[in-house]
Amino acid sequence: MRPDEARPRLAALGFRPTDVETLAAHFLSAEAHGQASHGLARIEWLESWPELDPAARPRRLVSEPGYERWDGAGALGYLTLAAVVAAQLDSPPARSRLVVCTRTFPTGTLGYWVRQLAEGGLVALLTATSPRRLSSPTGGDPLTGTNPLAIAIPSGDGAPIVSDVSMGAVTHGDVLAGRAKPEELVPFGGPQAHKAFALAVGLQLLVDALVPEEGLGAVLLVARPEADPAPAFRELAAGVRLPGDRAR
Amino acid sequence: MRPDEARPRLAALGFRPTDVETLAAHFLSAEAHGQASHGLARIEWLESWPELDPAARPRRLVSEPGYERWDGAGALGYLTLAAVVAAQLDSPPARSRLVVCTRTFPTGTLGYWVRQLAEGGLVALLTATSPRRLSSPTGGDPLTGTNPLAIAIPSGDGAPIVSDVSMGAVTHGDVLAGRAKPEELVPFGGPQAHKAFALAVGLQLLVDALVPEEGLGAVLLVARPEADPAPAFRELAAGVRLPGDRAR
Repeated sequence: MRPDEARPRLAALGFRPTDVETLAAHFLSAEAHGQASHGLARIEWLESWPELDPAARPRRLVSEPGYERWDGAGALGYLTLAAVVAAQLDSPPARSRLVVCTRTFPTGTLGYWVRQLAEGGLVALLTATSPRRLSSPTGGDPLTGTNPLAIAIPSGDGAPIVSDVSMGAVTHGDVLAGRAKPEELVPFGGPQAHKAFALAVGLQLLVDALVPEEGLGAVLLVARPEADPAPAFRELAAGVRLPGDRAR
Repeated sequence: MRPDEARPRLAALGFRPTDVETLAAHFLSAEAHGQASHGLARIEWLESWPELDPAARPRRLVSEPGYERWDGAGALGYLTLAAVVAAQLDSPPARSRLVVCTRTFPTGTLGYWVRQLAEGGLVALLTATSPRRLSSPTGGDPLTGTNPLAIAIPSGDGAPIVSDVSMGAVTHGDVLAGRAKPEELVPFGGPQAHKAFALAVGLQLLVDALVPEEGLGAVLLVARPEADPAPAFRELAAGVRLPGDRAR
């Protein structure tokens, strides 16, 4: 699919213009930043969903100063996270806020969402579950999703620092695209894969314990920074590439 | 050091009896759970601190429903985290609470603290910074601590599930004890060590951005669970060892 086909094909699926724009921006950003498995191929994937409901809208069910709960309510996870991010930027927490997103899938590249929050001046940490594809390195059935953890920190001197790490050695998208074999979709780390597996389990159960409804979800922490460590950190790094830098 | 020497030697350092008990319990638990690098050897290490102040007390500087800030104020990080954990169990959040701990070091095995919170019914996520020892896999000076991430989830059928993962391939304690070479203290993951390094950077800057004072600190998220996913997860795991199980 060519980049200029993204918007017409999303519109043909029945999404309203603002949602077409939100979805196209995410997919095109993924393509531009070397994350093709979260890019335009996902539009073809959405075209294969018999249950796709382009009219569904995420709903904010609970809104308190330090806590929100959202329900995807049948909308794509991308659209739920976009609405969540916009709501946080529109009304940032005085100190911090936990945002629990139930029935929220697919969520795309989590770094994309936390980067927007950091560009708006907020510290953000985000994780999300996905279908169970990772088994323990000791064997057995798949127990967890690839469950990425993304963290973004604003920087007084410009671009945020954005870390976005999946616990899988390869992505499911890589498997779908034939760039990796299904048996390569294991916790990353080789002989120390038990560490990535433990992180995947912890993040899986964190989300599963905080969402009231069974199913895939996301958990976001946003907070106002009390300090601006990124510029000095970049200086200390002295040219070493930092997480998220390639994405710029 | 024999286990029965722990309390007398901590008392000899000048700690009051309740702090002796808190410290000994942590070190003996680490020994019992195969984490000797966080165990009794740390008492000898504390004996070598010229700046040790056994009379110092952590202080809660900010206390709001969804946010607290604590200052170690010269006390050992262990004692700060013990006070923080006790305070959360004593007054759990209605929904969730972010607890930022400034000047908090050393923090020991983070799984030990979050396990206590999960045993008290709270979901907990905790990270802490430590002296910079991890370099980027591409080279350069050390930029981050080993920055563990610990997550604990209560379980309706008994023991919590506790994930506690350091981003280092070995621990600094292993290096001190001669069980590992200094050059082995790198981000874990071998050819995918860039992932553990990215996590270490994200967690480093998360803490550094949330603590108002430069220096080592800890960040804790506690929340009331909305679901009890652990029993079904254990069933799905069908005997596969889960994170934290060995520690029981």
